Amino acid sequence: MSKRIITISRQFGSGGHSIGEKVAEKLGIAFYDSEKLTQKIADETDFDISFIRENDEKAYSGMGMFFDLGIHGGTSFTSLSLYDQLYIAQHNAIREVAEKEPCVIVGRCADYVLEDRDDALHVLIYADNDYRASRILGEYGKRDLKIEKRMKDKDNKRMNYYKHYTNREWGDALNYHLCLNSGVIGIDECVDIIVDIAKK
Amino acid sequence: MSKRIITISRQFGSGGHSIGEKVAEKLGIAFYDSEKLTQKIADETDFDISFIRENDEKAYSGMGMFFDLGIHGGTSFTSLSLYDQLYIAQHNAIREVAEKEPCVIVGRCADYVLEDRDDALHVLIYADNDYRASRILGEYGKRDLKIEKRMKDKDNKRMNYYKHYTNREWGDALNYHLCLNSGVIGIDECVDIIVDIAKK
Repeated sequence: MSKRIITISRQFGSGGHSIGEKVAEKLGIAFYDSEKLTQKIADETDFDISFIRENDEKAYSGMGMFFDLGIHGGTSFTSLSLYDQLYIAQHNAIREVAEKEPCVIVGRCADYVLEDRDDALHVLIYADNDYRASRILGEYGKRDLKIEKRMKDKDNKRMNYYKHYTNREWGDALNYHLCLNSGVIGIDECVDIIVDIAKK
Repeated sequence: MSKRIITISRQFGSGGHSIGEKVAEKLGIAFYDSEKLTQKIADETDFDISFIRENDEKAYSGMGMFFDLGIHGGTSFTSLSLYDQLYIAQHNAIREVAEKEPCVIVGRCADYVLEDRDDALHVLIYADNDYRASRILGEYGKRDLKIEKRMKDKDNKRMNYYKHYTNREWGDALNYHLCLNSGVIGIDECVDIIVDIAKK
């Protein structure tokens, strides 16, 4: 398999998580999502599991500005905020699992964290709003907050987090090898396309 | 075939033109590139063929600002500049061929022009600079201008044209159904992925 690591960035409700799970299953490789990475960080660092869950994919720069954390070089920073330390812990966890075994990793700027690896395939999954709304309501149920607002809040949160830690625009095709509109192409078809490319 | 029209936007040197040609051949449908659309416009309007060739995919707004031409509604404007009239002629030619027959259309903001059609699949093809440079040198040969500068000039020209006439950012994955890095995935593999999706 020429691509032993697959990173999946995804829009809320696009089915990116399910696609990642199915790809891992079909390829017979490990699957790392938020929950698995959270558990790994809680096991291996001083972070409390509830703090990690609460601050997952949140960015805390009022200015939305980028500052180079220098972590590609492996330097450690103890004077950083807890949020930036959490990002670094996630960064290190992602580098470690990619080194350890073939895997699918969902979210957490994994495309950026692993951009230097030739054995990684970077995928973006998104879909039109109607399709996403219907999937979200089916999967998570109705809430007080309107579905349009729920999607917008989550999209903005992920975009800010991504921009803050990578200085890239979320959704720029050139940052990925493959971008798929799951609503138009279909969840299972997306899985097949990714699996075929990874195998070639 | 659920997607009878395929639009291909492409980065210079990414092989998008060849991919479009091969997709059309495999699906047995018409292929419209710059040359064919130019000929059609020259045949059916007062535009001189050399003027069309010379001003192909050029944008003439010093400010890079968008102004709504209102052409989705079919209104005609005789007070517009020649360049904007040429864009409208291209817009109308694209709408006409899409209405007339199943086809592949390369470039000319066809994704935007046909965004309201449910039977259209919008594809973006791009690649890393090294891959593009090697393809460009192989296909068009060396010139006095450095290859990096040739790519940058052409990329900027297409980005400005796209931005000027669509008010969208070139390369935003959300404007397409499928975005493929042809250098990583392979030209023939890109063709197969597009053909499979179009047929489903």
